[in-house]
Amino acid sequence: MEFSIIQIATLLDGEIVGNKEITINNFAKIEEGKSGSISFLANPKYESHLYTTKASVVIVSKSFVLKQPTAASLIKVDDPYLAMSTLMLQYKKISNQAKSGSESPNFISQKATVANNAFIGAFSYISDGVIIGESCQISQQVFLGKNVKIGENTVIYPGAKVYDDCQIGDYCTIHAGAVIGADGFGFAVKNDGDYQDIPQLGNVIIENNVSIGANAAIDRATMGSTLIRKGVKIDNLVQVGHNVEIGENTVIAALTAIAGSTKIGKNCQIGGQVGFAGHITIADGTKIGGQSGVSKSIVKTNESYSGRPLLPVKEHLKLLVGLRNLSKK
Amino acid sequence: MEFSIIQIATLLDGEIVGNKEITINNFAKIEEGKSGSISFLANPKYESHLYTTKASVVIVSKSFVLKQPTAASLIKVDDPYLAMSTLMLQYKKISNQAKSGSESPNFISQKATVANNAFIGAFSYISDGVIIGESCQISQQVFLGKNVKIGENTVIYPGAKVYDDCQIGDYCTIHAGAVIGADGFGFAVKNDGDYQDIPQLGNVIIENNVSIGANAAIDRATMGSTLIRKGVKIDNLVQVGHNVEIGENTVIAALTAIAGSTKIGKNCQIGGQVGFAGHITIADGTKIGGQSGVSKSIVKTNESYSGRPLLPVKEHLKLLVGLRNLSKK
Amino acid sequence: MEFSIIQIATLLDGEIVGNKEITINNFAKIEEGKSGSISFLANPKYESHLYTTKASVVIVSKSFVLKQPTAASLIKVDDPYLAMSTLMLQYKKISNQAKSGSESPNFISQKATVANNAFIGAFSYISDGVIIGESCQISQQVFLGKNVKIGENTVIYPGAKVYDDCQIGDYCTIHAGAVIGADGFGFAVKNDGDYQDIPQLGNVIIENNVSIGANAAIDRATMGSTLIRKGVKIDNLVQVGHNVEIGENTVIAALTAIAGSTKIGKNCQIGGQVGFAGHITIADGTKIGGQSGVSKSIVKTNESYSGRPLLPVKEHLKLLVGLRNLSKK
Repeated sequence: MEFSIIQIATLLDGEIVGNKEITINNFAKIEEGKSGSISFLANPKYESHLYTTKASVVIVSKSFVLKQPTAASLIKVDDPYLAMSTLMLQYKKISNQAKSGSESPNFISQKATVANNAFIGAFSYISDGVIIGESCQISQQVFLGKNVKIGENTVIYPGAKVYDDCQIGDYCTIHAGAVIGADGFGFAVKNDGDYQDIPQLGNVIIENNVSIGANAAIDRATMGSTLIRKGVKIDNLVQVGHNVEIGENTVIAALTAIAGSTKIGKNCQIGGQVGFAGHITIADGTKIGGQSGVSKSIVKTNESYSGRPLLPVKEHLKLLVGLRNLSKK
Repeated sequence: MEFSIIQIATLLDGEIVGNKEITINNFAKIEEGKSGSISFLANPKYESHLYTTKASVVIVSKSFVLKQPTAASLIKVDDPYLAMSTLMLQYKKISNQAKSGSESPNFISQKATVANNAFIGAFSYISDGVIIGESCQISQQVFLGKNVKIGENTVIYPGAKVYDDCQIGDYCTIHAGAVIGADGFGFAVKNDGDYQDIPQLGNVIIENNVSIGANAAIDRATMGSTLIRKGVKIDNLVQVGHNVEIGENTVIAALTAIAGSTKIGKNCQIGGQVGFAGHITIADGTKIGGQSGVSKSIVKTNESYSGRPLLPVKEHLKLLVGLRNLSKK
Repeated sequence: MEFSIIQIATLLDGEIVGNKEITINNFAKIEEGKSGSISFLANPKYESHLYTTKASVVIVSKSFVLKQPTAASLIKVDDPYLAMSTLMLQYKKISNQAKSGSESPNFISQKATVANNAFIGAFSYISDGVIIGESCQISQQVFLGKNVKIGENTVIYPGAKVYDDCQIGDYCTIHAGAVIGADGFGFAVKNDGDYQDIPQLGNVIIENNVSIGANAAIDRATMGSTLIRKGVKIDNLVQVGHNVEIGENTVIAALTAIAGSTKIGKNCQIGGQVGFAGHITIADGTKIGGQSGVSKSIVKTNESYSGRPLLPVKEHLKLLVGLRNLSKK
């Protein structure tokens, strides 16, 4: 597919500086651009690439001032990163046309309700009582347990598994291998010292616009619901325990583990490989650095922490200095 | 489904205090109870909820003494947590009736032996030489490799994969996406400096009453067997290396990694995101806090450790104080 | 299968010491050997087992000198560990004969190109434009997205998923549940504070002789390619972010996370549960201890580091001593 720079500038509500006769046919990082590429410059750190790039077009900020000449045409916009993302989204929509209908063989219960324009891939299994909304794309080898409800325009990638009674909202993305609604990890000790499984009778509720990464695991509640609020972004291989609640627009990086019944506020940013103890509450807007250990509730909103023990970032940095000194003694 | 408080008290061998005419139809946490809910109070920390709960029935300890009046009827038992768990288990058994037979399409080798009352879900693949015992529930999209043996009453959730020659006992639960018997991670350096895979010719043996969490990985042994003893509970996304042995009734939380040939004793409790070095031995009854790093064998039984370096819990707590001080200098 | 000691010594170019009439029929660790077993002794630490082993044959180093008599016959070779591995590899080749053709039901697009002697297992899905090379073994329940290219002699285990446009080389092994090419984790903040997914339009390129562990996740690039160079060995449950590059013959243990755009050199050895920040560069030959946190680039080649903060191994060991002292105050 080819697009003219004028089409692109119109879509992005941007202003062209330079040659207006150019067409582009691919996206590239500014340092890897070729003739026909469109790229972007958001971080001033990479400005030098603008003067050597072979990309035909570079999206820059309205406030950006050239310090040297560049061979590329520019499109000036309010937010280059967001504009590039919007453009890529548009491209993806055009190139990956949504499918509808279903591929054979599959297994769709006669007691399931599937919207006419939804798609069900081969080898997927749709149980009794499932409801799948408009324009959903249920890929291949997906499992949806009894009474699972999926909203509209949600994409489930190959091999994801959703246990009985779980609910997923609109415009969600569930990546390959993710497991939604497996049993929470809970055991009672019997009189003979052996463990008895505590049955997990609750479910998982995932609201709208949520992304769940590849091979992530979101456990069902013991009673009630594990709650993933709207706009939450969960990366690959994250573990979310039973009865956890994650507030809206919170972002959680890979391999983080959240133990049972913990509540994380909204607009939080959680690094990779972080561990949360169970039964704690994290205030809205909290930022936690990668590999931290969070053992207690955080009450004050919008603060940043890191490390183990978890410390405010400034103190954590001082601790790192102290530890480096200790290593030289 | 509805049950009378008398039915429930009889099942639990408990004593009713309050209204004996009540029926219940769902389970709830004490703070989320509604009319018709049954709940429980095990931890005195939550006692205040008992005086405000809307649950119709609350299970409490025989020794419990009311400090205020409550609208709920009580059932007094020896161990409220275990009693609630028993009740939920009973409910789950009634509501999820075991299936038998098989769904189409599936692939069952003519050289496999499947008990008459076992169930095989659609898109599951049962290889040559597989033996599946009485009352097993093999869900959809499961893979069982050549000569895999599954005992009786074991449940394998959708998409779990069991490689050739592995064995799983009775009353086990293998959650969705778990991989049992992939190759251990071992390489020999060739003369040209490249790696040569060390073929992994052993298997995995999982004894009775074991739970394996979603997307967990239990590697096969190089030679011999990786051993998961009876009653072991392994959470989601745990990695168990080749030739590891885990003693009976040991519990391991999410995202923990156990390197090759390590032996963990029985009745151990291992937190989440813990790392074990290879070729070490951990004594029975050891407790390891979350995110700890275990680099050496532990000889003394029934001790608790935490941190990196791994320290007895008391010393670890002192270290945390020391580190907090260091961060303030 | 049975082999004579003479057949084995010939294959390994080794010298027999002791009885030459022996046949062997299984592999065992030296301490678990039985009559008919072949074992090996590479690490002098285990020498005592040689004098008590019941194995019929033990492979030892050419330079090895017996300190006591042993009942076992010996085969003397240059490198016992490599020799044992070569022997096991040979055994595995003979016992697992490569299959060709395909099992039903499966889904192979008419627009896919599959080599005549490749194998496609039941319930696997091969999309439009896929190319599968000679002698590949694509197991059951595998998903290959549009335009995926697989070289020759590559094995993909059950349930692995490869997203559109990704490429895998020759002689690779992709274990069960691995997800290749899911979307990188990137979001732009919209004017209303919500997140907009950044479409991930790149791919993953995996070169020859690469192993990817069970349930590992290798994300596709935002633009361009996530690159896994030849000979790389990635263990189970590892997370590789978008646009990461891993240099040839680098080995990465389980549950390690590599954030977006980081470049790791060749011949590196990375322990388990290590975390790498994004956008950093790690020099060739670097060794990183398990559970370390790598937040900055490493420029000097062939150095060893450990811990958080990451320190040269000697300093890290001093730090551990310092911390132990701190815990006793």
